[in-house]
Amino acid sequence: MNSSELLEIKLPLPEFRQDSSLFNALKSRKTTREMMSSPLSVQMISNLLWSANGENRKIGPFGVSGRTAASASNSQEIDIYVALQEGAYLYDAHQLILTPIVAKDLRFSALTPGQQITKEIAPVQLIYVADIHRLTHTKGFQEPGLKDPEVQKSYYYVDTGLIAGNVYLFAASQGMASWFHNCDKISMTKQLSLREEQRVLFAQSVGFSKK
Amino acid sequence: MNSSELLEIKLPLPEFRQDSSLFNALKSRKTTREMMSSPLSVQMISNLLWSANGENRKIGPFGVSGRTAASASNSQEIDIYVALQEGAYLYDAHQLILTPIVAKDLRFSALTPGQQITKEIAPVQLIYVADIHRLTHTKGFQEPGLKDPEVQKSYYYVDTGLIAGNVYLFAASQGMASWFHNCDKISMTKQLSLREEQRVLFAQSVGFSKK
Repeated sequence: MNSSELLEIKLPLPEFRQDSSLFNALKSRKTTREMMSSPLSVQMISNLLWSANGENRKIGPFGVSGRTAASASNSQEIDIYVALQEGAYLYDAHQLILTPIVAKDLRFSALTPGQQITKEIAPVQLIYVADIHRLTHTKGFQEPGLKDPEVQKSYYYVDTGLIAGNVYLFAASQGMASWFHNCDKISMTKQLSLREEQRVLFAQSVGFSKK
Repeated sequence: MNSSELLEIKLPLPEFRQDSSLFNALKSRKTTREMMSSPLSVQMISNLLWSANGENRKIGPFGVSGRTAASASNSQEIDIYVALQEGAYLYDAHQLILTPIVAKDLRFSALTPGQQITKEIAPVQLIYVADIHRLTHTKGFQEPGLKDPEVQKSYYYVDTGLIAGNVYLFAASQGMASWFHNCDKISMTKQLSLREEQRVLFAQSVGFSKK
């Protein structure tokens, strides 16, 4: 199988029919490892991804668009790969598109062996991948740290946390479950056919809560 | 001057008189470097810190209290030092107390030389400090990564991002300004009298927006 068997998904504009106050989302923020495997609607996936790291204004810092999550010098170096049952996609926040990557269910193999005891697999797994090229070629403030591997690490991990926090709050606002976790980096690097400058960092499962 | 000249501050319970929906907070989330230096009320500081990494339930994962921001194995290894004009404090999320650290204004010296061009200094600067001891001695799941310095890095930087994202959304919900930035690690390690197992990571300025 290859990505040509998987169709591009045009995402609807984010629209929150159910919302909560920020205070209530913070109050109910928590990690929930167990969740149902029932799929999310395309609208829900669009809302989730926009909350995570969507475009929230055309002009942000350094003349580039702004995002719901900050990034070092607005480099927007974290990509979100979206593993669904039918295959894996790349979230294009600007075009509001899920670009097909591979027509294979990666949700289980993204977990580390120790995590594969989970009985039901989440309907959506977000895989966070840093693109070092975007740090070294930022349109933002050209500070020396962006070319230093140790500083790069500090930036791309923090930037992942900024996105993952949005996901936690989105899930809390919807009464859904979310779990930020390690993932099998070697397997995902291969299966997502990543370039040399890309680094698989972590993953996050999202789904409906068990009653 | 030393910390004995600085009094402990008992924080009021978090109470959001002005709130916004999560959607609107995400929509207006942005980095704003310029802000007014007018101080925040103690209530506002309590709301800010609770949003950042407050206790949101008595029993969270692994029998320890839960927080508004996730952390690796619920180790809660990130401390927030709070630099105000009169001095620096440590946020005690459980006791709702600002514990005095040093009666000295660290808000300017926490900035790196390149950032010290700021004309007005933020009324509050949050300084994020990791405590490695809490990762190696977690009450949570004892996974080998917690003792591996490279894995520790990935955890404490992500966990900082999870907190900083909450701060960004809190600021957005209040129409306030926030800026996550580098800080002078050497100076802060010394001025905050940190232990060997503590690491200064980043800082975040918060204040009222300029009109």
